[in-house]
Amino acid sequence: MADKPARGLADVVAASTALSDIDGQAGRLSYRGYDINELAGNASFEEIAFLLQRGAAPDTAELEAYRAELAAGRGIGRLAAADLAGIAASQQPMEALRSLVSLGSADDPDAASNESAANLRKAARLTAKQPVLIAAYDAARSGRDLPEPDPGLSLAANFLLQLTGQPPPERAAEMLDTCLVLHADHTMNASTFAARVCAATLSDMHSAVVAAIATLKGPLHGGANEQVMRGLLAIRAQGGDPVEAVASHVTDRLRLGDKIMGFGHRVYKTEDPRAAHLRQMSAELAGAAGDDTFYRMSRRMEEVVFAEKGLYPNVDFYAATVYHYLGIPTDLFTPVFSASRMAGWTAHIIEQHADNRLIRPDSEYVGESGRTWIPLGAR
Amino acid sequence: MADKPARGLADVVAASTALSDIDGQAGRLSYRGYDINELAGNASFEEIAFLLQRGAAPDTAELEAYRAELAAGRGIGRLAAADLAGIAASQQPMEALRSLVSLGSADDPDAASNESAANLRKAARLTAKQPVLIAAYDAARSGRDLPEPDPGLSLAANFLLQLTGQPPPERAAEMLDTCLVLHADHTMNASTFAARVCAATLSDMHSAVVAAIATLKGPLHGGANEQVMRGLLAIRAQGGDPVEAVASHVTDRLRLGDKIMGFGHRVYKTEDPRAAHLRQMSAELAGAAGDDTFYRMSRRMEEVVFAEKGLYPNVDFYAATVYHYLGIPTDLFTPVFSASRMAGWTAHIIEQHADNRLIRPDSEYVGESGRTWIPLGAR
Repeated sequence: MADKPARGLADVVAASTALSDIDGQAGRLSYRGYDINELAGNASFEEIAFLLQRGAAPDTAELEAYRAELAAGRGIGRLAAADLAGIAASQQPMEALRSLVSLGSADDPDAASNESAANLRKAARLTAKQPVLIAAYDAARSGRDLPEPDPGLSLAANFLLQLTGQPPPERAAEMLDTCLVLHADHTMNASTFAARVCAATLSDMHSAVVAAIATLKGPLHGGANEQVMRGLLAIRAQGGDPVEAVASHVTDRLRLGDKIMGFGHRVYKTEDPRAAHLRQMSAELAGAAGDDTFYRMSRRMEEVVFAEKGLYPNVDFYAATVYHYLGIPTDLFTPVFSASRMAGWTAHIIEQHADNRLIRPDSEYVGESGRTWIPLGAR
Repeated sequence: MADKPARGLADVVAASTALSDIDGQAGRLSYRGYDINELAGNASFEEIAFLLQRGAAPDTAELEAYRAELAAGRGIGRLAAADLAGIAASQQPMEALRSLVSLGSADDPDAASNESAANLRKAARLTAKQPVLIAAYDAARSGRDLPEPDPGLSLAANFLLQLTGQPPPERAAEMLDTCLVLHADHTMNASTFAARVCAATLSDMHSAVVAAIATLKGPLHGGANEQVMRGLLAIRAQGGDPVEAVASHVTDRLRLGDKIMGFGHRVYKTEDPRAAHLRQMSAELAGAAGDDTFYRMSRRMEEVVFAEKGLYPNVDFYAATVYHYLGIPTDLFTPVFSASRMAGWTAHIIEQHADNRLIRPDSEYVGESGRTWIPLGAR
């Protein structure tokens, strides 16, 4: 055991999992033994959520039943509905989701149970509900009614329907579906780890998911995709050739010692395999949009950062432009990430509860010692 | 670094802190170098919250200003007020606090800032507000109005006033104050660790506190004090001599391999110093109540568990009867714990933000590898 703090717990093995695996040297990610490169474009998010939560790929009947379970879960709940207007008017999207999911346990008959069957039902409900909460929040803050869900649509297509009010183009829904597959799980990332720390006290799934949402909110974790987009928008707004402006922007930032958002990863030493899929989707969407400015800016940024720092883009970098081209408001990028990662969070909570031990590390004390307390009057 | 998972991260040093230190062998706990035995009964909770959050014991003027800051923070907030009735009717106390604190960021002008000055203001507001939220929840579920706060009272006395509607006896307020001092911080416990994991993504203080509340909710952490009281109530309800019934109850439970709640601790190898203070308060309150049944039952349980297992009572064991004698409903014991630990949580978040690194451990993959994804139709 380490005597000195392993700052950030980097390289400390905190838990065992059968859910996902990363080979950082080779740039490989797999879910339950299936390489992400095989899954992206071939498996639906519903199949992946089932695979993660329930342990094996569903057969046709299982998938149909699971889809029906998800479609039945597309309500926002009683307390959330009552409080939505106030929340949407005064909380940022990730704050709002933290509040709405916390309120949501009131509607879940299994809220207090950590039993395996109850956890599976809650995992499906939380997965079904997250995109609905995002769309409901966006509708409420814009003064629109939330469009009715369509039980015949996939989770991704229904999200775009409820977000935009229009049945989405088939290819757009497919691409969002692939994004959700790519973000569904990623070993012991900070939000997943927070969920497991919480669940390990035998706290319930809603609590652990709320802890995960609270953690994903941080700009060093989920917030990066939004910052990438804000960076691209700001550079373009400066006028001139935006692709050339990217190069000088990055060089200037690096000279100041700043971090460039969307690059580098503690685990991957080569390209993040998810980035390759997202780059391809970004290119396709840029072409379809008839304006590939943001895509070309992204490519240029990638070149410059690699030349200057040897860093590869991570999952957040091309997710930004993909979500943007799909018409998702920038401040909902992290919420959309949460809708995908819900599959992984809930699966990790199930795994933690199934073989639990309290997660309670040590700390190294670096403060003063042996002081004498002097009563207030004498201080 | 460990190759094999350090299950539960036991003995893994996850962070440095100057806030509290435990000597598990000697049974010592200190806050910023002051032994808990010097603080209990001598320092007020306000002094301790200031000490933890701001780094040094306050002088008279600083303490007066801090008390005024806390007194000014005794409102429940806009969204919380609007939603309180619904929440109180349909969420358990710790779920409700999770929701109410999450909603509360809407009222905090510093919510989005992690700057040091903003964090200090938020720490005071969150510390002031937590007991008010508990009393407001209890009033709402009982159909009572929340009594007005009294800015002249200490946090502990004002809590008892707002909880019961009566100005509390001075000695009762003093004893609750001492309880709050005893529970204010405890190194890298699970809820504090969850708060730090959250804060380390540069998520904000409300988010990190919500993660901590979600984690404290678990019966392996904050829930233990409630379970101790429920156990005592259940044994007494069986009739016969309750003190003798304790002995056979414990023996039977241990024979079944069950854990006895309120005993043993991962860190203390001898008596938890907080337990000694709580035992003494439990005795005093039992005498004042004119019925020392629960105290005598607790003493007997302590004897039997020590004889059978060599385990000492932990902080939760005598906290149960102390809170009970103080008239606090059993299901609010963990919320009261949270009102105290808020001082430590917020101080740890301040400490994490001041010298941050993302907390992102590794995991050991124990699942299948190299599987081939078979499309749905072919499965």
